[in-house]
Amino acid sequence: MDNLATTPEPPYYAVIFTSLRTDTNDGYSETAERMLELARAQPGFIGVDSVRDGRLGITVSYWQDEAAIKHWKQNTEHLIAQKSGKTKWYEQFHVHIARVERCYLFSK
Amino acid sequence: MDNLATTPEPPYYAVIFTSLRTDTNDGYSETAERMLELARAQPGFIGVDSVRDGRLGITVSYWQDEAAIKHWKQNTEHLIAQKSGKTKWYEQFHVHIARVERCYLFSK
Repeated sequence: MDNLATTPEPPYYAVIFTSLRTDTNDGYSETAERMLELARAQPGFIGVDSVRDGRLGITVSYWQDEAAIKHWKQNTEHLIAQKSGKTKWYEQFHVHIARVERCYLFSK
Repeated sequence: MDNLATTPEPPYYAVIFTSLRTDTNDGYSETAERMLELARAQPGFIGVDSVRDGRLGITVSYWQDEAAIKHWKQNTEHLIAQKSGKTKWYEQFHVHIARVERCYLFSK
């Protein structure tokens, strides 16, 4: 990753996905990678930052509006991944959907 | 970290801090740790999740309202850390302030 996600002037939406993994891999990495690729191709997608260190991961994706988030949530391939996430890969996860109101950027 | 941050029924606020580190350590880990401890002690603080993997880090903190965020931003010790962050520790960082409108929780 070379840069942080580039975001426009607010308002827009953020989906904050925080998760604790199980010990089960079984296709996890490939699916996580594929979901990022698929998200990037969705209408209304703005950008994404994603980090995992061991069990704990945080992925923040930015979207133009709530309709774009709803559309992505219902994507067929994403629905299948969500199901495997619950049965195999995640011990716990939280999804916070939030309206970005302000943004400060710093760059050297 | 044993669990993800516990958050109440929306609405409340999230501060999404995404950063790319420089190669300079010089007190970084101690200050990062201290800032989490100090944030937890602030009025209006709800919870925090924080992950770093190499250069890229994401910290999401949750707050009862915008006044609590403003108060934390102006904390004297935090202001000093923010200054060192810009001069020493961060190549780039983004702060997105967002109003949490919905939340889904999953736990095995």
